[in-house]
Amino acid sequence: MKMYKDLSPSLRTIMTPGPVEVDPRVLRAMSFPILGQFDPEFTDLMNETMGMLRQVFQTSNQWAYPVDGTSRSGIEAALTSLIEPGDKVLIPIYGRFGYLLMEIAERCGAEIATLETEWGSVFDPEEVIRAIHREKPKLVAIVHGETSTGRMQPLADIGKVCRELDILLVVDAVATIGGTPVETDAWGLDVVIGGTQKCLSVPSGMSPLTYNSRAEAKILRRKTIEKGLRDPMSQTLSAGTAIRSNYFDLSQLQDYWSPARLNHHTEATSMLYALREGLRIVLEEGLEVRFARHALNEKALMAGIQSMGLQLYGDPKCKLPMVTCIRIPEGIDGEAVRAMLLEQFGIEIASSFGPLKGKIWRIGTMGFSCRKKNVLHLLGALEAVMICFGVPIHAAAGVQAALQVYREGEVPVE
Amino acid sequence: MKMYKDLSPSLRTIMTPGPVEVDPRVLRAMSFPILGQFDPEFTDLMNETMGMLRQVFQTSNQWAYPVDGTSRSGIEAALTSLIEPGDKVLIPIYGRFGYLLMEIAERCGAEIATLETEWGSVFDPEEVIRAIHREKPKLVAIVHGETSTGRMQPLADIGKVCRELDILLVVDAVATIGGTPVETDAWGLDVVIGGTQKCLSVPSGMSPLTYNSRAEAKILRRKTIEKGLRDPMSQTLSAGTAIRSNYFDLSQLQDYWSPARLNHHTEATSMLYALREGLRIVLEEGLEVRFARHALNEKALMAGIQSMGLQLYGDPKCKLPMVTCIRIPEGIDGEAVRAMLLEQFGIEIASSFGPLKGKIWRIGTMGFSCRKKNVLHLLGALEAVMICFGVPIHAAAGVQAALQVYREGEVPVE
Repeated sequence: MKMYKDLSPSLRTIMTPGPVEVDPRVLRAMSFPILGQFDPEFTDLMNETMGMLRQVFQTSNQWAYPVDGTSRSGIEAALTSLIEPGDKVLIPIYGRFGYLLMEIAERCGAEIATLETEWGSVFDPEEVIRAIHREKPKLVAIVHGETSTGRMQPLADIGKVCRELDILLVVDAVATIGGTPVETDAWGLDVVIGGTQKCLSVPSGMSPLTYNSRAEAKILRRKTIEKGLRDPMSQTLSAGTAIRSNYFDLSQLQDYWSPARLNHHTEATSMLYALREGLRIVLEEGLEVRFARHALNEKALMAGIQSMGLQLYGDPKCKLPMVTCIRIPEGIDGEAVRAMLLEQFGIEIASSFGPLKGKIWRIGTMGFSCRKKNVLHLLGALEAVMICFGVPIHAAAGVQAALQVYREGEVPVE
Repeated sequence: MKMYKDLSPSLRTIMTPGPVEVDPRVLRAMSFPILGQFDPEFTDLMNETMGMLRQVFQTSNQWAYPVDGTSRSGIEAALTSLIEPGDKVLIPIYGRFGYLLMEIAERCGAEIATLETEWGSVFDPEEVIRAIHREKPKLVAIVHGETSTGRMQPLADIGKVCRELDILLVVDAVATIGGTPVETDAWGLDVVIGGTQKCLSVPSGMSPLTYNSRAEAKILRRKTIEKGLRDPMSQTLSAGTAIRSNYFDLSQLQDYWSPARLNHHTEATSMLYALREGLRIVLEEGLEVRFARHALNEKALMAGIQSMGLQLYGDPKCKLPMVTCIRIPEGIDGEAVRAMLLEQFGIEIASSFGPLKGKIWRIGTMGFSCRKKNVLHLLGALEAVMICFGVPIHAAAGVQAALQVYREGEVPVE
């Protein structure tokens, strides 16, 4: 019989755009014994998590809770609960995860209109607004922070127009939540989905989201009472087409997260412990300080990369603060560099997708991985590896430049 | 600002039909630092998990991996990947979770045929077989262990007929996997979904499943190449109707779990650590010994309950070994008893659903919670609480009867 060894993972410095290193306090939280899902102690923890999510999403929405699945589960829950077959949906695409929104919306039966722009840039909000007037969609779905290209889309103007025209705006803020402002209410976002394994430094496996009463009204119009599950005698009640999923039916999920606690799934206890602790850490640090820390480490990393003589990728005006993309120097095997960083230095950085495959490396500075120590370790390692591969760089200049940024920085870093 | 306290959950004795106490080794596994999802160390752990799942599912299927979500996510992934709108689906229902199968299949657009039998019993396989011949479904979905009523449905005869008639058989083995035999291959089951938070003693949040080449062939006929995600230039290719979900598209999930490692979601690292450790514990104990341990604790619990003078619920011929249902004595408030058990003794037992609400208590003896210490503690506490509530019972008889069973038992228990 094959023997399976004790778990003993290597300690990595994870500088990808997710998953990133998990805060040790979060790891500890997952090691506590579990409670039953309807134990009053546990439902109190669920309520606390909702309260903290509202703060992190910067919203007064009633509904802010996690879907039990990885980040795309929250996106699919939102889209499948809101899109009825035949609904017109506008999706502006500026990288890989825009295509994911499109694919999910297609599978919901939407009539899709897309708007595409060159990878490495984002949309002028006016361009999106013109498309909204032209296409008259029921729903607009857009990515806030596109990790595939390292760009961030401004949303406030788009939100304002969607609200005026009574269009629902669904935002994938998986990469940005907890690392840069995501102003759900101020920007007029109807649904926002965040990620755990990025700037919250919680493992993958939960997808926190929030939605307002405009989105809720649409969801409730499609509500189906489960036959037999809650009351075998009840009838199916539905105005509009029923939501095509049980697992992702937000009307049922909100009943489960409400004081009524109507049974749906069995909440993923240890992941809930992890999310609660991750949110507690975010709020203890403070959103503003946390955003400034992400910005300072980004600045130090960019200074280091450029000072050693490597080129950044993409339009700097719309750079995503927590993802820095580097052009792979001509003639260099990007995968071989990544392998040497992992094997010799224990550092993981990312490649990219589609047209950017083999063209750029992507470095994440997210959550607990967003630390001075990590940035300096990476810069030193990258300099050494570049020299091994014969790339002409300014040796030690990168680390020096980053150190200078930290010296001038106004946020405490470690 | 509201303060959120350090996590410090009470230590419960959890004797519900799930979630149950998590093995301390599993809790420890979740506290290890994470690896990146494409780190070769991590993909090795994924492969090991698949290997162990094959053993636990008693199958030589190529595909055995977890869906990242709670148990019903695996059920929905199977049904949504296999059912095309208009497909005839037969669902024999003998408790609450049969209705869940029906609801999910309805949302997939199936034409549903149901077969119902009185709660507390199961189907004579011949009755199901007659319905199969009558309805000629493309797929039969059935629950193996129905926790709402504490019954277990024999499946081998049904599996044989489905195979002969080329009908897919999908089985919800959430409650039974790891606690009693689930012979995927020998019984002719095409898809089996297991649960983590029951007899595997892993937290809720993953849903392991397995399926054979018959199921895979159907899934691959519906395969859609994601536009843009893997290659923005590729076209949508699909014979048959596309699967209505991205998150639950088993054709994409199996690509992610295959050596090709095509990117889909970000695997839930800490939950994967937990599942791997839980499976390792199961295989170290050995399936046969583990099943015998579940049977012995069940026997002791039943002897205790009956000796103190309480009545069991349901047909004993089809009792689910890991769930024991007790009739709530006339005039007793079942919820008040449960509250006293929780508050005074730290023990959680369950109520039930629908027509059984207020009529029965349900006691789970599953996984790490399935221990002599837990059974004896529960019996002692239940005797004390019954006396407090004025129920005429034979004091101390329950604990004595259970002890006698343990003395005569042939499996090591603690």
